[in-house]
Amino acid sequence: MKGNMPTMKDVAQEAGVALGTVSKVFNGLPVGDSYRIKVEEAAKRLGYQVNQYARGLRSGKTFTVALIVPGLEHPFFAALAHQVCAALAQRDHRMLVYVTASRPDIEQSCINMVRQNKVDGIIGLTYNPLELDEDLPFVSIDRRLGADIPCVSADNFGGGRMAAEKLLELGCTRLAFLHTGSVNPNETDQRGDGFECVCRAQGISCDALRLKDGDDLELFREFLRTHFNNGRLDFDGIFCSTDLLAWQVRNMLEGLGLRVPEDVQLIGFDGIRRFGGQELYGSTIVQPVQRMAETAVDILLAKDRSTAPALVCLPVSYAPGGTTKE
Amino acid sequence: MKGNMPTMKDVAQEAGVALGTVSKVFNGLPVGDSYRIKVEEAAKRLGYQVNQYARGLRSGKTFTVALIVPGLEHPFFAALAHQVCAALAQRDHRMLVYVTASRPDIEQSCINMVRQNKVDGIIGLTYNPLELDEDLPFVSIDRRLGADIPCVSADNFGGGRMAAEKLLELGCTRLAFLHTGSVNPNETDQRGDGFECVCRAQGISCDALRLKDGDDLELFREFLRTHFNNGRLDFDGIFCSTDLLAWQVRNMLEGLGLRVPEDVQLIGFDGIRRFGGQELYGSTIVQPVQRMAETAVDILLAKDRSTAPALVCLPVSYAPGGTTKE
Repeated sequence: MKGNMPTMKDVAQEAGVALGTVSKVFNGLPVGDSYRIKVEEAAKRLGYQVNQYARGLRSGKTFTVALIVPGLEHPFFAALAHQVCAALAQRDHRMLVYVTASRPDIEQSCINMVRQNKVDGIIGLTYNPLELDEDLPFVSIDRRLGADIPCVSADNFGGGRMAAEKLLELGCTRLAFLHTGSVNPNETDQRGDGFECVCRAQGISCDALRLKDGDDLELFREFLRTHFNNGRLDFDGIFCSTDLLAWQVRNMLEGLGLRVPEDVQLIGFDGIRRFGGQELYGSTIVQPVQRMAETAVDILLAKDRSTAPALVCLPVSYAPGGTTKE
Repeated sequence: MKGNMPTMKDVAQEAGVALGTVSKVFNGLPVGDSYRIKVEEAAKRLGYQVNQYARGLRSGKTFTVALIVPGLEHPFFAALAHQVCAALAQRDHRMLVYVTASRPDIEQSCINMVRQNKVDGIIGLTYNPLELDEDLPFVSIDRRLGADIPCVSADNFGGGRMAAEKLLELGCTRLAFLHTGSVNPNETDQRGDGFECVCRAQGISCDALRLKDGDDLELFREFLRTHFNNGRLDFDGIFCSTDLLAWQVRNMLEGLGLRVPEDVQLIGFDGIRRFGGQELYGSTIVQPVQRMAETAVDILLAKDRSTAPALVCLPVSYAPGGTTKE
């Protein structure tokens, strides 16, 4: 043995097979199952670790995936990055991270950097139109960049429906929908569409205010004040497009002397947890972040990407968190 | 031009210099300032990007750094990863992320993986004894792994002092310190040492309860109940070793019918902000996360690492967040 690092030769000797067989197993080439098992067990016994870099040179793969996100400071992006990292590690891949602050110039320059670096693919949560490289596999989160670029998202429309149905089930009769989001259209816009669809079908009135990132949040406070007369709000159920907005709206409602959930019930979207722990900020539609990450990784690393779906919407769930009557 | 990607040759032509000069500039070799500026400006005009991979092959460097953290879901780790990524990007390096869940086996296997992969160095926030590779630069966050491994942390001792001084300044006369942390000793243990040091110097009584990760948090509630008689708590100022603990203790105090900050003032540690935004959870000692990240990166990438300090403690600051009388 060379130093304390076992080599492929050591593994071949330990397994009682030819060196070529070991090489085939480590490079994923076809070999009889009994040989494969012998080699894998010998490698395990010796603590042999496949040299990823050498493996990359041989196979033309780098076993590296780039994740492009606006940042890691928002808890949804942090949770997504965490789950993508874990899903990649389980599949023996590693994760490079690029942060963009959602700026179009930085997003494009990340793409250009990634093109130059050797990676096997990109998982991107981007907000702006991008020039992509056809040869470099790309899976988008929450935004459809084109029919040939698979997109993975939560079922935003279904989540919006779920929020409306839950508020009605809990006794609400006058609903409102409040939204903030990117100026660029993306899948999360459908949260309101699903909500309003249920209201229309059931003949329930639904007021809405949709703002874009950068708009003054005070417009929400003004909206609520306009609908607040003689100590009473026109709505008894409000759906907010994110947990952050629901938190801000809750503070505005309490500022008007209204009690949540007694006077107004409130549902957010995302499933953000305090300090990355278990406690929710309020009642919410929970995004299946782990499943979104695993699905994006599976689609990205699939051998045959020609059958990749254009859009995968994964099921969300409702979780009570104190801002509804359960 | 080859396709739409300018080459070094194009840059040489545009700058009116020899190809060798361009190569020297891109590889950081000495060349007259006027030449360097010509080349850099030509490269900028043409949108030339240095091919990192080729640059790596030439220089034996990968311009890649591995960050090893327990996870990205806790907001402190998320903020640290965000700032390390930004600091590396500014220095034309990229970041690989490995998550460990603080498990010793995963921490060591990450180190082993990183050894096999080509990286220029590691920034690690780890909790367990590690076998490190002398040839691979390592900078530790918050934990001293040995005299030859530089450690970067917030000034935890100074932050503890600051919390005690602030509570005394705000009129508190009976103090307590509550701590949760890793079973393995690390720099953050000094938060309580600094706090108690001020109390001793000023002759102020200070009760303390120190728990380890995994201990039942109900022990804190019990501790508070033991010190709660006739609607009055034995303490009017409490310092908690983290913002998360301060949040939990605040809920316990309110459960006893005590008002924060009227009856008890509370200071946490970390400077965690809700939803990664601006709002603090409460009054706190803020860790200089960005400066910690930049310092760790600078030490890691320094050409001469022989003069690296064993420990760099960066100054913290106090920020009021509603749980103190300012």
